[in-house]
This record gives sequence, C-alpha cells and structure tokens, in this order.
Amino acid sequence: MIYADYNGSAPLLPLVKTYLKKRLDSDLFANPNAIHSMGQKVAQGIEKCREIIANVMGCYPDQIFFNSGASEGVSNVIHSVLEYTSQEKNVVITSPIEHVVVHKSLEFFKKRRNFKIEMVNISSTGGIDLSHFEELMNKHKGKLALVTIMAANNETGVIQPYEKIASLCSQAGVDFFSDTTQLIGKGEFHFGKSGADFAVCSGHKVGALTGTGFVMVKEPTKLKSYIYGSHQERGVRGGTQHYLGIETLAVALQDFYENTNNLKELKKARLEFEAELKNAYPQVTIIGENNERLSGTSLIGFSGLHGQAIQIELEGHDIFVTTSAACADNQPETSATLKAMGVKEEIGRSVIRISLSYSHGKQDYALLVSALKSSYNKLSKIQSY
Amino acid sequence: MIYADYNGSAPLLPLVKTYLKKRLDSDLFANPNAIHSMGQKVAQGIEKCREIIANVMGCYPDQIFFNSGASEGVSNVIHSVLEYTSQEKNVVITSPIEHVVVHKSLEFFKKRRNFKIEMVNISSTGGIDLSHFEELMNKHKGKLALVTIMAANNETGVIQPYEKIASLCSQAGVDFFSDTTQLIGKGEFHFGKSGADFAVCSGHKVGALTGTGFVMVKEPTKLKSYIYGSHQERGVRGGTQHYLGIETLAVALQDFYENTNNLKELKKARLEFEAELKNAYPQVTIIGENNERLSGTSLIGFSGLHGQAIQIELEGHDIFVTTSAACADNQPETSATLKAMGVKEEIGRSVIRISLSYSHGKQDYALLVSALKSSYNKLSKIQSY
Repeated sequence: MIYADYNGSAPLLPLVKTYLKKRLDSDLFANPNAIHSMGQKVAQGIEKCREIIANVMGCYPDQIFFNSGASEGVSNVIHSVLEYTSQEKNVVITSPIEHVVVHKSLEFFKKRRNFKIEMVNISSTGGIDLSHFEELMNKHKGKLALVTIMAANNETGVIQPYEKIASLCSQAGVDFFSDTTQLIGKGEFHFGKSGADFAVCSGHKVGALTGTGFVMVKEPTKLKSYIYGSHQERGVRGGTQHYLGIETLAVALQDFYENTNNLKELKKARLEFEAELKNAYPQVTIIGENNERLSGTSLIGFSGLHGQAIQIELEGHDIFVTTSAACADNQPETSATLKAMGVKEEIGRSVIRISLSYSHGKQDYALLVSALKSSYNKLSKIQSY
Repeated sequence: MIYADYNGSAPLLPLVKTYLKKRLDSDLFANPNAIHSMGQKVAQGIEKCREIIANVMGCYPDQIFFNSGASEGVSNVIHSVLEYTSQEKNVVITSPIEHVVVHKSLEFFKKRRNFKIEMVNISSTGGIDLSHFEELMNKHKGKLALVTIMAANNETGVIQPYEKIASLCSQAGVDFFSDTTQLIGKGEFHFGKSGADFAVCSGHKVGALTGTGFVMVKEPTKLKSYIYGSHQERGVRGGTQHYLGIETLAVALQDFYENTNNLKELKKARLEFEAELKNAYPQVTIIGENNERLSGTSLIGFSGLHGQAIQIELEGHDIFVTTSAACADNQPETSATLKAMGVKEEIGRSVIRISLSYSHGKQDYALLVSALKSSYNKLSKIQSY
C-alpha cells in the first residue's frame, strides 16, 4: 500500500503511535490548568513540548500558541489583524491560490468593514508574480492592513517567495501572514528567518494527532483571542489544552527535524519519477514543473483522461492519491489554483496529486510509475473505443 | 488513587483507551474529505459516530456540529447569534456564574455593538433566581438577542432550571443557549426535550480525547461559520475533522448512556458522604446544599481553613481535588460564582471541590471521608498553634 495523500492528511507517524500506546498506559490525564500535581505535570509536559517545537520551528516558546489546527489558526490570525486594525488601513493583499479558509475569513471582514481584497497574479508555473505584488504594495502604500500569502501550495507544492514577501512587508510596515500549513513537516522552515509575522501548523499534516496545531507570532501580543477562555495559552486561546495532541506534535516535529536530510533524496527520486513519466507519455504535464516545489509533491496532468478515473485505477493497485486538495475533492471542475495559473480545462480535469513524506523514496516512486503506466494504458484503451 | 476532578477534566475512560489502542493498530488514517476510499471510510466513521451521539443526546444527527470543544462551541454560538442579529435586538441575559468563556465572548460583542448585558440574580443556594429572570425578560421584551444560562454549574454542580428558561425563551421568541459542558456525561440530558436552541459538549469532560467536542443546534442553519473552511460539517466548521476525537466521543457517550443508572447510586453515596462530614464537623458548609446538583459534585467549605491547604493534604492521600474551577485555580480569592451566591469570603477561601463520575460510588466516598477527616484534624491543630 502506498498512501500518497500527505498534503491532504498524514497518517500517524509510527513514532507517534508508539508514543501514544505507551502514553495510554499512564494515568496522567488531567486538566493542565488545575492546581493539583497531576494537572501541573500535564502542564509541564505542554511547556516541554513548546520548547521542543520552538527549537524545530526556529522561534521562541512564547511565540507559539497551541490550538486545534491550521483552519483555526488562519481564522484567528486574520481576525487578530483585521478586527483591530485602524480605519484607514482598508486593503488586504492575498492570492487566488490560498486555501479556502483564507478567502472565507477575508470575505467576512470585507462584508463587515468593506476591506478591499487585492489578488496578486499567479504565474503559469504556479508562483506569485513578484512584480505585480510590488506594484500592489506601492499602489496601496499606507493603506495596507495585511498581506496573506501561503508558503507552499497544497495542490502544486510550489514554494512561494515568502521570505522576499516578508522582507517587502517589513520595509512597508505591513503585517505578513504566511499560511505555512503545507510547508511545515514537508520542507525546511525557520520562523525567525522567514520574517513572517504569523505562521500556522496543523498536527494532522505532520503525522501528529488530528485536532491539534499552533500559531506562531513574531510579536506575541499581536495575537488576539478568538476562542475565549481563561488564562490558557497566556490568556489568548481558551479551552482546555489538547495536551495529547500537543505531545504528539512534539514527537512528530522532532522526527521531521532529525530526518530533514531525507528531503534531498525524496526530491531527487520525485524528479526522476516525473521525468520517467514524461518520457513515457509526452502528453503528461507536471504542473508547476519549473518552480521550486515541496520535495514529495507532484501534480500531474494526463491530458485526455479524467483525474478521478486514474485515482480509482490506482486504488486497484492499493495506491491512494487525490485529484486536488482534499477539501475541494469531488468537484469535477478545474481548481481555483489551476485556473489562476492559466491551466487549460482539459488538463485541469485530468490531474492527480501525489504527495509523499520524508519517509518515502525511490522504491515508492518505482511502484507509482509502474501503477501509473498500467492505469494509463488501460484507460487510454477504454477511451479509444 | 482517587482522581476527584471530573468537572475539571475526566481521565480517558478505560473503554476509550482500549478503543484507541486497537485503533492505533489500524492503518485507517486519512483526510475524511478526500475522494479516495480511505478518506471515505474515515468519513463514514464520523457519520456513524454522529448517529450514536445523536441518539445519546436526544437530537438529530444533522443538529450536531463537531468542533474542538466547548470553548470553541460557546465562542461560535455567541458569534452566530450576536454577529447576525438585527440592530434593534441589543440585550443579552446571562448570569454571573457562567464560565469565563461566556462572559468574554459577550464582552467582545458589547464593545463592538454596544449590547446591554443583563445579569440575572443567583440565589444563596446557587440557582438562577427565576422571578428575577422573568422580570428581565419582560423588561426587555422585543429587544432580546440572546439568553445564555448554563445547565449545571462547574463549581457547585447546581443544576439550573434550563428547561423552564427554554420554555420562557421559546414563548418570547428569543434564542436560548445553554452551556451544557458540565451536565453532559454527568447528568441526564436530552437536547430535544430541553427546548434549548444551542448546547455544547467537550470531549475531555466525558472521558473522550482532548480537543474534541460538538455544538447542538435546534435549527441547524442558525450556526454560522467561525472557523472557516470548505464543506466540512456541512460548510459551517472548517478544518480537517478531529476524527479520532469524534470516535472516542461516541465510545464515551455510549458508555455513559449505558450506565446512567449508576447516577442514582452515586448521588445517594454523595449525600451520605456530605451528611457524615457535616455531622463530624458542624462548621462544614456544603455549597448549594439545598439545590439539585450533579450526582458526583460536592463543593465543601471548611471555614477557618484554606482550601488549598486541604487540597495539598489530600494529595498526601493520593486524592486529587481542586479549590474551584480548573480555569480559575491558583486564584486565592473567592470565585465569582460564590460571590454571586453571597458566600462569605471566609468560607469562599476554604472550599474544595470534589467531582466524581458515574464510575464511582460508596467506596470512593468512604476513602474521601477518611482522608478529609485526617486532613482536617491535622490542619486544625496547626491553625490552633
């Protein structure tokens, strides 16, 4: 079996499973905000995890706020900036390839306070058009409330120039939020060096438990309460902490940290896989091919076929892929990301996404090539009848 | 060991531990929104859990929206009503004994839209003053946006007349939100019969995983997005579902459902325990004594002693209690709930909360009495020096 949908959700890491099994045998389950020693031990565990995660992420422990995952993180960050920004700051720059949570959060504030949402152009290779971005920055000088551009795209895997954007935002004194959900755990990321004001992480994308994650904030006081409560997470995020989730986040991110070297191998194997596929079938398109992408992500167009048909064929080989982002799956039309890149409808409908993790390599891609060839040949024959 | 802080957080149920250990051995970890069969199996699992939970809760499956827990639930419900209510509805009725998340969520909307927040009086036995409530309802007729009154108090365990309140709200056409966090899993509750428009549940309060929970909504369209996203939870709650959490919720609530008969035994044992304590020490006060309370909750004042000193003494007997609500712990002053009841500072500072679950009974209270007597005698001696 090859589970090739890590951009959708990563299965629990083997190390996380081992950790949890041992953890379940303990009796240490208590409210970390309680005064008794059991609660205090749970609370100390959370703080130890915060330190481990801060080390992996390149930030300080007090820049981390645990929550339920990236969708909460995005909603919270956008609320923190747009709810409290001054009236004259009424423009937001974002991109059409952001996750739907970004667009819907912005839509809420657009309705409420009439923010102008500017969309930066996307190049045909899936990256932000930096000159258009600079143009927008200049056009709205002094009026910018927020720039929100993702670090890596969930569908294409294209890594965006977030450091350059951060630097431009910093010069202009504008808050920059980079949705790092897809980059963390799949590519190298250092919050401090990134220059971003806000970043987010989801546990289930990195092999930790579901329902856990965190926001990173350069100036911690900039994060405002969204889920209200008492003094949890320094008074900013209410609700009894998902401590088991937090513990698995530390286990998973530490494992990633110790294995980042595998990313190079993975990337090499992925490029060879893509080349072999293109070599065998000239009509195959690798979306975002000429851009820097996540080491284990390929979005492949099989012009003339339907992506979903290939996906189903691959299941016959015990290989699990998707046709687009999980949250947009089941939709037959070309995704917003591909439309923004100018990908033709014919190719857009024919794509499958293969997303692997740093635990994969050459042997997985060998199986994928073989299964894809078999599926392609079968489906092409059916089509030609 | 007696863990007597179930109102703070319940340890994982033995059944939940067994379930999780088996679950960890499976390979079924995937994004429930993905198109592939693994994702679809996870999604089917979620829907099966929704049916089990709906049956236990006395509601329809489509009235349940899974989320990260009650703090998110409360924030989301209050947002859903107050963000979208018409301008002329500018009064909210609540009580001073609500959880801090209710007060802070209301505070946000008070600042934003100048809502008037009316506090209903609390009787000396810890219940809502119903005649004052009716007075407030009449006073603000036609202007009421929301009534938010909890079902059971976290500190005293006093069960509030939420069905009566629901009926009055229904007659007046006002949305009624009952914070049921402490009642669910500790007392009988039927959403349909309650008459409430909104209710909430936290997984970690019922022996399920942390970071999971749900909102119940009488008219499902009344719940509005707070954490944005795609079509998860019928488009209302974004973010990849915490499916492991949801599965444990179904296991835990089903276990509660099959053991509700134990609540009577528990209540009987608790009343005998309280009587024995009062008999031994006439200066002992049972807060909310004359009110209907959660079967396993006692808030006990040991006038002349400090609650925290007793709590520490009990730890020497391997018994874990708190001095108030977990989220307000470490605060030496009398809690807001006790102040609202008119409990004197001298008693307020001397309280400990003992909260047990339906798995406890007579033998646990026997150990508690013995440990409390020993602690009391020791501390009284120290005090008299």
